[in-house]
Amino acid sequence: MSAVIAETSLPLEDRGLAFGDGVFETVLVRDGRPMLWEAHLSRLKRGCRRLGIPLPAMEAISELPGRLGEGQHVLKLIVTRGSGGRGYMPPSSPEPNWRWLSVPFTPRASCWWEGVRIRQCDWRLAIQPALAGIKHMNRLENVMARREWTDPAVAEGLLCDTHGDLVEATSMNVFWQREGRLETPCLDQAGVAGTLREALMTRHPIKEVHCPPDILGQAEAVWVGNSVQGLWPVIRLDDMTGEALHQWSLGPIHKPLQVTAHSLLGYPLPAVSGA
Amino acid sequence: MSAVIAETSLPLEDRGLAFGDGVFETVLVRDGRPMLWEAHLSRLKRGCRRLGIPLPAMEAISELPGRLGEGQHVLKLIVTRGSGGRGYMPPSSPEPNWRWLSVPFTPRASCWWEGVRIRQCDWRLAIQPALAGIKHMNRLENVMARREWTDPAVAEGLLCDTHGDLVEATSMNVFWQREGRLETPCLDQAGVAGTLREALMTRHPIKEVHCPPDILGQAEAVWVGNSVQGLWPVIRLDDMTGEALHQWSLGPIHKPLQVTAHSLLGYPLPAVSGA
Repeated sequence: MSAVIAETSLPLEDRGLAFGDGVFETVLVRDGRPMLWEAHLSRLKRGCRRLGIPLPAMEAISELPGRLGEGQHVLKLIVTRGSGGRGYMPPSSPEPNWRWLSVPFTPRASCWWEGVRIRQCDWRLAIQPALAGIKHMNRLENVMARREWTDPAVAEGLLCDTHGDLVEATSMNVFWQREGRLETPCLDQAGVAGTLREALMTRHPIKEVHCPPDILGQAEAVWVGNSVQGLWPVIRLDDMTGEALHQWSLGPIHKPLQVTAHSLLGYPLPAVSGA
Repeated sequence: MSAVIAETSLPLEDRGLAFGDGVFETVLVRDGRPMLWEAHLSRLKRGCRRLGIPLPAMEAISELPGRLGEGQHVLKLIVTRGSGGRGYMPPSSPEPNWRWLSVPFTPRASCWWEGVRIRQCDWRLAIQPALAGIKHMNRLENVMARREWTDPAVAEGLLCDTHGDLVEATSMNVFWQREGRLETPCLDQAGVAGTLREALMTRHPIKEVHCPPDILGQAEAVWVGNSVQGLWPVIRLDDMTGEALHQWSLGPIHKPLQVTAHSLLGYPLPAVSGA
């Protein structure tokens, strides 16, 4: 994965580098058009507001995707509080820094159509309502959870918080259907509220719930997804030893949510069965 | 505060920059001699082990302080998991990066001899036993807590965790004497275990406790300190509105711990009263 176009570095004094004092977005860009762009910018602004970081000039940022040219890319955009201050104390008038990086991207199409195997993670996410939901740069917990397995057959890992409630996958949000109703974990205690999650919630009646991961045992269908890879049906959930806890058949039940997600992201739509 | 000597930046792909996937140390260096150096290196190694980051070659790092020349400096050393991997997933064989930065430093001597006023912070530290104690680069919580006040008369802010237990100050550890016994918060749930704290604990019988901040109301003496500033007696604790919750008289009771701390850091010793 090599960078094609990039502002290549940050100074060591930058607070984003020193303390993770900033936010970021990873955006799918197709032929210069950013997918779910308004949702990404909106979350970026929400994160900056939460952290008290002034917004950088958005004009230059808005022009970025158009500069990436043809093909599919992932654009990573970071906004930090910039340099200055004394230790943890921020400067009274921060001058934010922003940087970006773009890499060519090919989604894992087999995951869309064949579904994925996921696993439970041992790592528990800390409960921090004041930082929950935003995509800040303190992501050591996600890294530590993702270190738990290397088997490429396992596509994602499920994370609970220290109270035992289900939160998210290491880099995706989780959705399921139970007794005909769509649900997803409430992210007011931990986790990142994905832009795809937000877009799906405005288009389908998805209820946010606090619940243990056992709830998936009652689910008729489970998905994991994000705004870069799209939506993956889950066909098997393993425990930490690799034993299957639950299995689900891939079927028509998975399609409506996937149709919405892939329409939003410009990905191919699943064939409608019987059509 | 301008850098005098530095490796000046990190590439945007570095995982330390992207996710805070790394550890750091800030070391007091006097005339090229690093204070509490073994304790700093030991915590750095402990942090790398906890995160699964291979240690960089320590020879070059060991030579750093000697290159800073005369006078007092603070050396900031960071070690990251380097670049590579895919998203949160680290590379199977990480090649760690390390960088450093040095700034001239003058300690706040008046705080040693006149004591300091501190305040309670509204921010609550998340409980995360798997990361507690080490000095990792995910320090947004400390930044957010330090943003709560700007009055230079308030030297530090006290932090509790989401359970309500006292943990630390924003960039210092906390110590107190109660019924003649020295105590400090146990840092197995949150917080950074300072090198000065560690050094004091091997030289004085300091008990680690889990307790609410109200315990300071029963204290005969309170200190905050770290390996860069030394040890500050606390003479007043404010609530978040600036009202005094407790006050303590500066006295001989503060001296033994300060003598040990300042001997270790090469700072002036308090005059022994009556001597």
